[in-house]
Amino acid sequence: MVDEPGRLMRAEIAEQPAVLAAAVARRDGVAGVAARVTAAAPRFALFAARGSSDHAALYAKYLAEVLLRLPSGLVSPSTTTLYGARPDLSGVLYVTVSQSGGSPDLVEATRSAREQGALTVAVTNTPGSPLAEAAELSVDIGAGAELAVAATKTYSATLLALYRLVDAVRGGNGEAVADLGALAEKTLADSAGPVAEAVGRLRFVDRMVTTGRGYSSATAAEAALKLAETSYLSARSYSGADLLHGPVAAVDADTAVLAITSRGAGGAALRPVLDAVRDSGAEVVAVGSAAGETGAAVRIAVPECAEEVAPILEVLPVQQLALGLSLARGGNPDQPRGLRKVTRTR
Amino acid sequence: MVDEPGRLMRAEIAEQPAVLAAAVARRDGVAGVAARVTAAAPRFALFAARGSSDHAALYAKYLAEVLLRLPSGLVSPSTTTLYGARPDLSGVLYVTVSQSGGSPDLVEATRSAREQGALTVAVTNTPGSPLAEAAELSVDIGAGAELAVAATKTYSATLLALYRLVDAVRGGNGEAVADLGALAEKTLADSAGPVAEAVGRLRFVDRMVTTGRGYSSATAAEAALKLAETSYLSARSYSGADLLHGPVAAVDADTAVLAITSRGAGGAALRPVLDAVRDSGAEVVAVGSAAGETGAAVRIAVPECAEEVAPILEVLPVQQLALGLSLARGGNPDQPRGLRKVTRTR
Repeated sequence: MVDEPGRLMRAEIAEQPAVLAAAVARRDGVAGVAARVTAAAPRFALFAARGSSDHAALYAKYLAEVLLRLPSGLVSPSTTTLYGARPDLSGVLYVTVSQSGGSPDLVEATRSAREQGALTVAVTNTPGSPLAEAAELSVDIGAGAELAVAATKTYSATLLALYRLVDAVRGGNGEAVADLGALAEKTLADSAGPVAEAVGRLRFVDRMVTTGRGYSSATAAEAALKLAETSYLSARSYSGADLLHGPVAAVDADTAVLAITSRGAGGAALRPVLDAVRDSGAEVVAVGSAAGETGAAVRIAVPECAEEVAPILEVLPVQQLALGLSLARGGNPDQPRGLRKVTRTR
Repeated sequence: MVDEPGRLMRAEIAEQPAVLAAAVARRDGVAGVAARVTAAAPRFALFAARGSSDHAALYAKYLAEVLLRLPSGLVSPSTTTLYGARPDLSGVLYVTVSQSGGSPDLVEATRSAREQGALTVAVTNTPGSPLAEAAELSVDIGAGAELAVAATKTYSATLLALYRLVDAVRGGNGEAVADLGALAEKTLADSAGPVAEAVGRLRFVDRMVTTGRGYSSATAAEAALKLAETSYLSARSYSGADLLHGPVAAVDADTAVLAITSRGAGGAALRPVLDAVRDSGAEVVAVGSAAGETGAAVRIAVPECAEEVAPILEVLPVQQLALGLSLARGGNPDQPRGLRKVTRTR
């Protein structure tokens, strides 16, 4: 039986408003973990992840630094798994993000971090997974089983879980995400048209650059990965600051630039980058609540929300774009060549 | 007067054996800074940088975690400069890496870190620069003025300065870099032939993926940036672990893979990645002391040395390759479009 290409990915993209609304409504889960984190009063936060979850971890790093005033870093698990590094992690909050909870290197790095004195938290879509067992505390992403190979609903639900955890630690009441389900629904509905336009214009492109600043850097990184995985595009993500510093040399009229730009400090800081990129003759597609204020060829607007939760909405049209481009180019994002659901490297 | 294309970049690549040998011979500079770091007994290390220096910072993060047992992270300066984050940085070693020492956002982030209680160290090629003034301590990279727009000698000299600093903090005697000048000279001489072969085979390529594991991840990241800047290639770097997790889907017979592989744990861990990549039909060029053990189409061998200093040698043929490809494709790496020497973003 031949399945309809992209059926699984399309269905899981569409599930997100319900998944996000249900997660917001659930009051358990993060409160207990947040209380433990608050009691431990960590001095640093480290985040460990791979693939899409690594972009969720980048988002969480911004949250921890800005909202919790915690110096934070992304871990390279291989310093532990390849070189046997055993840093002193007392006073450290160590958060491992993995939808499957099954990557052996993340499990090993988490176990080691716990032995070294860190307060370990697993953020995973698979309660009872080896990762959830290895960590002292765990947060259930609650996205339900993800069948498509490309992560969509687990990504947005992971961002939400990380935001809710950080917000609870700072004593917030979740106000910024109260209407997230409805906003996600509106985002998907509104962007269908502009996304189709972008698919038409980008169908034959070979090289894409994605960019964002601040919180939106995470969305830009996830966009590049999603496009590379599903459409076999050569897509690369740069922070807007780094892009101007050098790689803008590689942006020309053969390049499409996907710019993630939401209202707030990050979107404002991206403006000079967009000017430079447009001068190079590149085709620009803008996604986000500030997209309408850019001179981009295609502007995919997203409803406005607090800047720190904008990445949860911004990624939805990005997923639609990856799906649409994959199909337009004759691919099947549900069966990308070479893609595995669980990292097996050490 | 028309200048010979690539004259500056070629000359500065060739200077590196002398620059590295001179830095090794200089006993001042890092010892005093290392003593201050040791006395402060930091519990955490943060590294701030942009562009090529960001890859040097990634290398330093591995050094700090493995050799100093210090949990470490790469900073996103924009959490400070865009969002005004003011984390508590007492007990933190904050190292800012910038050859020019003039990027306003790095200067601001460093000043803020110092105000927040961090022990700040500037690693810069420009003593007396705003960055060196902003930080409490500074290490002079000592590479001499760099005239080419693409960083070459400042990159390798930055790696060496960071290694020497970390090695001095752990009480080492610099043994692993004692012969670095001679090894660098041998590397450049030995690799001229294989690099020319690689240039010939890659001249018409449009998409490249660079990959490495462990310490060599930094070299892979720097390679992608250097190729994008000078040859306008769409080049993207993945940790070997991440590559297998998803983006290997985008590697096909139209892709060249530049694999950085040195003897040791990192090179060994890259082997399954290379097998997967070869199965996809990609053209593989391997660089490093373990290159000869791969089945790569072109193998650019580098003399063996301690794994933790291998990135200083690995990058030399990478620079030669970027120069050669740029020239073969009709470019001039000394005048890349769009490239500026100092990041001016905030």
